[in-house]
Amino acid sequence: MLATKLIPRTASSQEQPLLVKTILAQSLKYEPQREIIYRDLYRMNYVEFNQRVRRLANVLTSAGVQPGDTVAVLDWDSHRYLECFFAVPCMGAILHTINVRLSPTQILYCMNHAEDKVVVIHEDFLPLLDAIKSQLTTVEKIILVSDKVYQNQEVSVPDGFAGEYENLLKTASDHYDFLDFDENTWATTFYTTGTTGNPKGVYFSHRQLFMHTMGLMTYVCGYEAVPFHSALDVYMPITPLFHVHAWGFPLVATMLSARQVYPGKYEPEMLLTLLLREKVTFSHCVPTILAMLVNSPVAKQVDLSRWKVIIGGSALTKGLAKAALELGIQVYAGYGLSETAPILALTYLNDAERSLPIDEQIELRTRAGRIAPFVDIQLQDDEGRPVPHDGHALGELTTRGSWLTQGYYKETERGEELWRSGWLHTGDVAAITPDHWVIIADRTKDVIKTGGEWVSSLAIENLLSQIEGVAESAVVGFPDEKWGERPHALIVLKPDYAGKVTSETLKTALQIQVSTGEINKWYMPDRIVIVSEIPKTSVGKIDKKKIRSEMKELILT
Amino acid sequence: MLATKLIPRTASSQEQPLLVKTILAQSLKYEPQREIIYRDLYRMNYVEFNQRVRRLANVLTSAGVQPGDTVAVLDWDSHRYLECFFAVPCMGAILHTINVRLSPTQILYCMNHAEDKVVVIHEDFLPLLDAIKSQLTTVEKIILVSDKVYQNQEVSVPDGFAGEYENLLKTASDHYDFLDFDENTWATTFYTTGTTGNPKGVYFSHRQLFMHTMGLMTYVCGYEAVPFHSALDVYMPITPLFHVHAWGFPLVATMLSARQVYPGKYEPEMLLTLLLREKVTFSHCVPTILAMLVNSPVAKQVDLSRWKVIIGGSALTKGLAKAALELGIQVYAGYGLSETAPILALTYLNDAERSLPIDEQIELRTRAGRIAPFVDIQLQDDEGRPVPHDGHALGELTTRGSWLTQGYYKETERGEELWRSGWLHTGDVAAITPDHWVIIADRTKDVIKTGGEWVSSLAIENLLSQIEGVAESAVVGFPDEKWGERPHALIVLKPDYAGKVTSETLKTALQIQVSTGEINKWYMPDRIVIVSEIPKTSVGKIDKKKIRSEMKELILT
Repeated sequence: MLATKLIPRTASSQEQPLLVKTILAQSLKYEPQREIIYRDLYRMNYVEFNQRVRRLANVLTSAGVQPGDTVAVLDWDSHRYLECFFAVPCMGAILHTINVRLSPTQILYCMNHAEDKVVVIHEDFLPLLDAIKSQLTTVEKIILVSDKVYQNQEVSVPDGFAGEYENLLKTASDHYDFLDFDENTWATTFYTTGTTGNPKGVYFSHRQLFMHTMGLMTYVCGYEAVPFHSALDVYMPITPLFHVHAWGFPLVATMLSARQVYPGKYEPEMLLTLLLREKVTFSHCVPTILAMLVNSPVAKQVDLSRWKVIIGGSALTKGLAKAALELGIQVYAGYGLSETAPILALTYLNDAERSLPIDEQIELRTRAGRIAPFVDIQLQDDEGRPVPHDGHALGELTTRGSWLTQGYYKETERGEELWRSGWLHTGDVAAITPDHWVIIADRTKDVIKTGGEWVSSLAIENLLSQIEGVAESAVVGFPDEKWGERPHALIVLKPDYAGKVTSETLKTALQIQVSTGEINKWYMPDRIVIVSEIPKTSVGKIDKKKIRSEMKELILT
Repeated sequence: MLATKLIPRTASSQEQPLLVKTILAQSLKYEPQREIIYRDLYRMNYVEFNQRVRRLANVLTSAGVQPGDTVAVLDWDSHRYLECFFAVPCMGAILHTINVRLSPTQILYCMNHAEDKVVVIHEDFLPLLDAIKSQLTTVEKIILVSDKVYQNQEVSVPDGFAGEYENLLKTASDHYDFLDFDENTWATTFYTTGTTGNPKGVYFSHRQLFMHTMGLMTYVCGYEAVPFHSALDVYMPITPLFHVHAWGFPLVATMLSARQVYPGKYEPEMLLTLLLREKVTFSHCVPTILAMLVNSPVAKQVDLSRWKVIIGGSALTKGLAKAALELGIQVYAGYGLSETAPILALTYLNDAERSLPIDEQIELRTRAGRIAPFVDIQLQDDEGRPVPHDGHALGELTTRGSWLTQGYYKETERGEELWRSGWLHTGDVAAITPDHWVIIADRTKDVIKTGGEWVSSLAIENLLSQIEGVAESAVVGFPDEKWGERPHALIVLKPDYAGKVTSETLKTALQIQVSTGEINKWYMPDRIVIVSEIPKTSVGKIDKKKIRSEMKELILT
């Protein structure tokens, strides 16, 4: 850091800290009459929303929540969740957004590790809670959430619970003065699971959430990367709110008092109903959900041409992008991690690219996006040296910015490993073009290092998958005395191709890609082995760790 | 400040400070081919602009500029000025934007007070410099700016000067690594003149400029208050860059790599030429300039319907707003001070107001604007107690936020007076509506305090000016034993109205406004005196101070 001259400050002068409450205050400033909608069950405007956030703060205070305490939420995407997004941090407390898809054991670990004091839980997750309740070490109060109150049905609140959310809000005061505090105050936390070890807790400060909101808003409103017009667009998340703050869009939409729709549990019929009835124009989701919508017979009968959707979580394939674009759906891609709050990149078609033919646009739209505003990215080699951003060279994607977790909670070593040499290491291998497109190639642990070059196992798998007869492929690096590592491939053939396609014909097919310059010659696997099955993990992903450890055996069979 | 739990940070973790260089970096990210234009003399794209900023940093380094040093600029609105906006702060130095309209004595005072080390000066101001040069106490190097270099004319650099800007840039390297430093580093300074005392130096940090850019961009892009579309709009300032950073728009436009046009010295013909030829869509100026354009015969012959213009500096009158709107020009109003960087308010027509008939819109568009994003405003009475924001009650407009000068340089007492009780006191008296419209009523020193109520002298003058026969009016508070103060009015009649209009007929006319409820009865001046002339200051403003001190005498004549 360069030594400079700082501004002098007179004794009584003030400068506002960057706090989540400033985002909330904006929601009431210009368009308080706009609505936030929950399924077909509840609608309110921003005046009521702000009152409810304050009521919730009073309810949580009554439940014993103090600054620095942690409040856990287990709910589907609801207006209540959005209320927690604001009430909890604005009180100076910490919001723990629990991934309800984790196993009960993992959730138990996270809740004890985060020291959750108060829990807000949807009745759908009560069986889960029952399974772990006796082992929770820090929870003092539980607040039930039920949709039945909006349907005039009886809600039974289990013994020992503090009450039902909606009824508690009704009796609470809507006056609560959110005070100022340090902008580095802890605002949110959640856990990310890796292939090994316990889930890791990431965390974000008020300043980081404020800056993420600024960065994302600058991108979608300032540059119109994925155009978001506060007066015209209607936002509906289809990535859960517990999944990295639903990518931060709820904060942007709330700040701009845009119309918002919360779909609750993701049920295809409800999603489609809301999409059409509320004229939703702006969403984000994983490829699976988009594929489900695109392939639904209804999609062809309705007008989805005003719908913009950002795909993240997994890569957007060209086929899916094309199918969506053909229905008039504007598809974009985003990239980020739990550790990065999450936005690092998002599709941005510049002046020249916007007028490209659809096929060329698809090539761009299926990339991980362009580096987002205020985000610094550096590709690094094994030794931490910068790799050129020339669109070809591969390196580990490392980043610096204003919204990155500053470690893992109570995991000093893993946090320091994440941040080694002062850059956050994503564990993703990528190429970056000179005009800032991010092209994800692989995970660092799967990339193949051969003769000083990095080879993307995904790129070879992608080529193999396009050869006739190939049902499935897995490429891993295998130790090699001369080159360090060399790629080896496992292939499962489609039924009826046994005998017709051989390792040799596959090699010949790949060789053509080499001769046309599509891939470098060192991408050519040393060995292509046809197998009957490729090892998978419990969640169905290719288990490359297992393949590497069993490679000798697999190849010899 | 509430005590809260701060986020833990691992040793190697990093969080980016909020710096002007981050804004600069954005300008190159997505649309580097867009252009910045200077009159009919120079055009460049953002790649070249970024190179030139770095060349300038090297030129300034060679001239001895170190972090913490001050660089003064005296230039018309040019691409060079924009380069200084970035190069100087990004080096860790301080940019002093000199108001070239001040008197030589005032400029001398400011330059010595700010301790300017290097001066960048347009040749038009050399006579000014000559007059004060011998008394400058801190200046070490002077760089000449001339437009002749773009016209292939010989430039004569005076003896002792470091050289000519453009030629110095040519020979400098375009590599310069802008380092990180504390975000509270001093970035800019300039001086504001009051009616008494020396000019006062205000100053802004990198964080403040960054946040001002965010706030303004959120308003014009996020809410589309005055819609700014980075891909479509073409920006041209017509408020000088030395006038409170040209309201911060150059930073917004540069960050978004929008097309920008710099008009140099404001010459009506050049302004109109650029407006039309470069298809300018977005500007800001004082009412005088808009009036000049609106009244020019050319205006009726050309299409100005894509032009959005924000009026500030003085109030936008209804007549001017109407005339501009009739030409298709979209007029807006802005409000702020030198002390506030400057944006505090800007016109924002919400969903309901956008569809109002023009006449009702004019009523809104001639207000000072709606409170800007992230700006906190509180009306206060004489004792610092909050005054309700009900659209009627008057109070001094005080503010808190993220881009306010934290004092006056080397003027401890005046800085503390500005910030008394932790709110920046604007010295303006206003009413604020419940939906955040700011209606400026008066200056604190001119408002009339009668029977515990604040009465706007401007409001009474405004009513008087609408009575037939009234050419000019001035209303001041005059000490009163019972009420503290009471309004007294001086009137100058139009020729031929002498004898026809009397104090009594004027009172009767005003009385009608009281009976219809237009004004409260305590607005009724105790005395209306017809005079032949109203005392004015040297710059032609009504001299209320003089009127107050001479009131007895004036009334008795």
